[in-house]
Amino acid sequence: MDSMTLKNRKSIRKYDQNRSISNQLLNQLIESAIRVSTTGNMQLYSVIVTRDTEMKEKLSPMHFNQPMIKEAPIVLTFCADFNRFTKWCEFRDANPSYNNFQSFLAAMIDTSIFAQQFCTAAEESGLGICYIGTTTYNADKIIDALNLPKLVMPITTITLGYPADMEHPMVDRLPIEGIIHNEAYCDYNKELIDEIYANKESLEENKRFIADNNKTTLAQVFTDIRYNKANNEHFSNVFLNTLKSQGFID
Amino acid sequence: MDSMTLKNRKSIRKYDQNRSISNQLLNQLIESAIRVSTTGNMQLYSVIVTRDTEMKEKLSPMHFNQPMIKEAPIVLTFCADFNRFTKWCEFRDANPSYNNFQSFLAAMIDTSIFAQQFCTAAEESGLGICYIGTTTYNADKIIDALNLPKLVMPITTITLGYPADMEHPMVDRLPIEGIIHNEAYCDYNKELIDEIYANKESLEENKRFIADNNKTTLAQVFTDIRYNKANNEHFSNVFLNTLKSQGFID
Repeated sequence: MDSMTLKNRKSIRKYDQNRSISNQLLNQLIESAIRVSTTGNMQLYSVIVTRDTEMKEKLSPMHFNQPMIKEAPIVLTFCADFNRFTKWCEFRDANPSYNNFQSFLAAMIDTSIFAQQFCTAAEESGLGICYIGTTTYNADKIIDALNLPKLVMPITTITLGYPADMEHPMVDRLPIEGIIHNEAYCDYNKELIDEIYANKESLEENKRFIADNNKTTLAQVFTDIRYNKANNEHFSNVFLNTLKSQGFID
Repeated sequence: MDSMTLKNRKSIRKYDQNRSISNQLLNQLIESAIRVSTTGNMQLYSVIVTRDTEMKEKLSPMHFNQPMIKEAPIVLTFCADFNRFTKWCEFRDANPSYNNFQSFLAAMIDTSIFAQQFCTAAEESGLGICYIGTTTYNADKIIDALNLPKLVMPITTITLGYPADMEHPMVDRLPIEGIIHNEAYCDYNKELIDEIYANKESLEENKRFIADNNKTTLAQVFTDIRYNKANNEHFSNVFLNTLKSQGFID
């Protein structure tokens, strides 16, 4: 299996059950990933490595039983972490004050770009990854499962393994003109939206997606089912309350 | 100039003033970067490209006059963007409800990992980048300068150019044992903190940093000067208020 270039990469959801990942390789990938930029060189992240079957079973429902959690050889939970830095300050006669929202933002960016650099290193080594976006939904439960102390928040989860299936097609993306703004933001009118989304809406798999869900437009599949108001609002409250209990907001 | 590998990369703060970056190259980098994973394939980001000298002068104080803003050929402001997706939903007979904190979180992660994949693509092409972490401090002012509508928040800024100086040493990082936790978070006691931070604290440049700032420990340089309580709390309030005015929290 050749390593994938940035331009041809894709998420991998099926893993070769016969190939494990050594700790040596995992450590090499993390050694590469820590060279990513970090706020003030504070490295405001930790990564929890899950290999244990029981622990995967415990995490699985927190990710709504997406099968990759149990099927991947390794699950990585990337956490925004101001606990380690705060402890260092306390042991060094300094008065840290990172129990606030800006500190959370810095740690969240640090963690996200560290996770992404890890993914790139993994893909260069022939591994496949999939982001699990449900981490922010059940942050409270993941905190309990992984024993995360105050000033640590789970941000994103990655499943990792050698690909079992590389044949699935690449997913569509919007044309780049749809995401670039020169000098200032140029807001989208109907003509521009029609143009940007034309390709996505023309794809057979997306038309099937509409029919399968008994909707009339693709957008309705998102607003009514996949990312709906009730879930968005419920899990927003959960996360904000968890930010409070973890000490990042008052 | 060879392209940098992940493991040897470093931030670049001085740019070759005689080498510009074509739109063609910039677009190629963005074409690579959009292949990064994205929540539900919603691509919850926009990038504002600043080449104009006057616009750089306008942005400069919002980044506390860090010289890279005016000196880099291109400044890129990466924005969490639920506006485009929401507009699409509205034009497609759907009822979007992305004016909430979970939607902001998803967009912030999408934006951060997109920015990082852009950086990796840029570095593979021989360009250098520097993250400007002040974007979350003055998000309100950047919104005005770049004309960002509701449901769009600036997350991070990158300065981009061909390196003028590749000779500066790589910055230290903590040993990876300090950031990896197996199966569950193992909290840090004094012995472990001493071990993890020993190399950082032994470095001559960090000892000089303490002396230059009239402090007794390196941690105090962070807590009292670089990332202090007053700034953290002030800019936390600014950002939370801006999240409200941009429509992401009530």
